[in-house]
Amino acid sequence: MKKIVECVPNISEGRRTEVIETIVDEVRKVEGVKLLDVNPDESHNRTVITFVGEPEAVKKAAFALCAKAAELIDMEKHKGEHPRIGATDVIPFIPVSNVTMEECVELANELGQEIAEKLGIPVYMYEEAAKIPERKSLPNIRKGEYEGLKQEITKPERRPDYGPPRMHLTAGATVVGARQFLIAYNINLDTDDVKIAKKIANSIREAKGGYKYVRAMGVMIEGRNVAQVTINMLNYTGTPLFRVFETVKSEAARYGVNVIGSEIVGLVPVQALLDVADFYLRLENFDRKQVLELNI
Amino acid sequence: MKKIVECVPNISEGRRTEVIETIVDEVRKVEGVKLLDVNPDESHNRTVITFVGEPEAVKKAAFALCAKAAELIDMEKHKGEHPRIGATDVIPFIPVSNVTMEECVELANELGQEIAEKLGIPVYMYEEAAKIPERKSLPNIRKGEYEGLKQEITKPERRPDYGPPRMHLTAGATVVGARQFLIAYNINLDTDDVKIAKKIANSIREAKGGYKYVRAMGVMIEGRNVAQVTINMLNYTGTPLFRVFETVKSEAARYGVNVIGSEIVGLVPVQALLDVADFYLRLENFDRKQVLELNI
Repeated sequence: MKKIVECVPNISEGRRTEVIETIVDEVRKVEGVKLLDVNPDESHNRTVITFVGEPEAVKKAAFALCAKAAELIDMEKHKGEHPRIGATDVIPFIPVSNVTMEECVELANELGQEIAEKLGIPVYMYEEAAKIPERKSLPNIRKGEYEGLKQEITKPERRPDYGPPRMHLTAGATVVGARQFLIAYNINLDTDDVKIAKKIANSIREAKGGYKYVRAMGVMIEGRNVAQVTINMLNYTGTPLFRVFETVKSEAARYGVNVIGSEIVGLVPVQALLDVADFYLRLENFDRKQVLELNI
Repeated sequence: MKKIVECVPNISEGRRTEVIETIVDEVRKVEGVKLLDVNPDESHNRTVITFVGEPEAVKKAAFALCAKAAELIDMEKHKGEHPRIGATDVIPFIPVSNVTMEECVELANELGQEIAEKLGIPVYMYEEAAKIPERKSLPNIRKGEYEGLKQEITKPERRPDYGPPRMHLTAGATVVGARQFLIAYNINLDTDDVKIAKKIANSIREAKGGYKYVRAMGVMIEGRNVAQVTINMLNYTGTPLFRVFETVKSEAARYGVNVIGSEIVGLVPVQALLDVADFYLRLENFDRKQVLELNI
């Protein structure tokens, strides 16, 4: 069974279509990699690129993309609302199938080293691949953004994990790392009272004593007159979908409110849904190898 | 997204390992086909072979297997407990991913024709690919087995759908068709009273007024002191897993009995489990294209 890793680089260009396309072409060229999404944001002047494939192919594509971005993007001229420190601002690897987080951390380190050595770009390792606890958090690394880091990069506490302690002339610096797959998940309530959605959101979010890997808010869905708990599932292995769904159902009942439905926004790893089936059918000894499509 | 078809030929040889291996090698040789299982039965003197792949590749492998079986198996000498009419006794195609039943019926017809024309073996089309209602059922086609059909094949009502109205000298006749994927599914009860399992089985099986695509029995699990409803799900699209599970739960409650767990025996198409997640999470607008692994 194939190992599958997802990679979601963010580049500091969201306006010049031909530049974005030339950079993304580097990913398209790599055999064994499938480009899933290219999402440019004009006001952020930033593009989020999503692709998947086997670990080595994905690493190769990430490096090629980073090299081309360094060539075509000049951080001295870059302006945009989103915090950033480099042409390829951040490159996370995400385990999807038959790959451990440790393998993704190793992959991230290999890529970080390669970017530093071959392109001369300083690299910071973040999240699961952080070498220093303070660098687990991306905002910490990006403090002061490109302009600020340029001044401070020689300070001991801001030295990169790989590469020289000075910014690349055009490409700035890059953050590389590994993190869990993030599932965007919404649960819709049979009420138009957004306060109830907000209370339920508070019952499941980590910040308020809820589940460790859950971020949640209560909002109104425009045009549907329906209150919604909108959720980021930061780690579906640690906090599974069914547990959050059942908790929201039970908290909603407290207010005499029903759950109308839920929705998964964008992509989801198959395991997250197999875990749901496993839970509700109370499966005994189920192995994902039994799933025909995952056998091929 | 790839089209995937499963093929499960049954050949009339379950004892001579070297013959079985030589026949199965024909499948292994075909690029784009994955052999999932080879299951020989000595007393039946019959082997069930399971493989999957894209439609054309699967058809090619099925033909090669059938040609080799015709060469190495002599029905004049074959003895075994299981009813059979030919060296390759039956070849069903089963839609797995991104393939319709109609496509599988067409594939079956192409293969049937090819077997008749190139190998001179008479072919009967069955189940979803049946050309006559009486041939939907395999036992009807196999009536009298090899020896009986040999006498009756010239009668109008027993004429094959493709090929000559006479048995192949060594290979006999072959049945080709298309059917739904069959899921073997068991539900375990918190009781040692097999009568309760039998009553619940009766509530869900078609024969007793239950679900159309369900066959079920009540049995005891040896060594676990647990009564079990053992189920064949003949069509998980028509009668989904979650509906059967919920009905068994509700019928069990009638006797004050809980469902301990359930188990899927062998392979299952991913869609059958996605449907379970969809049902319990009450998903809105879910599309299997959102599943990362199915996108690659």
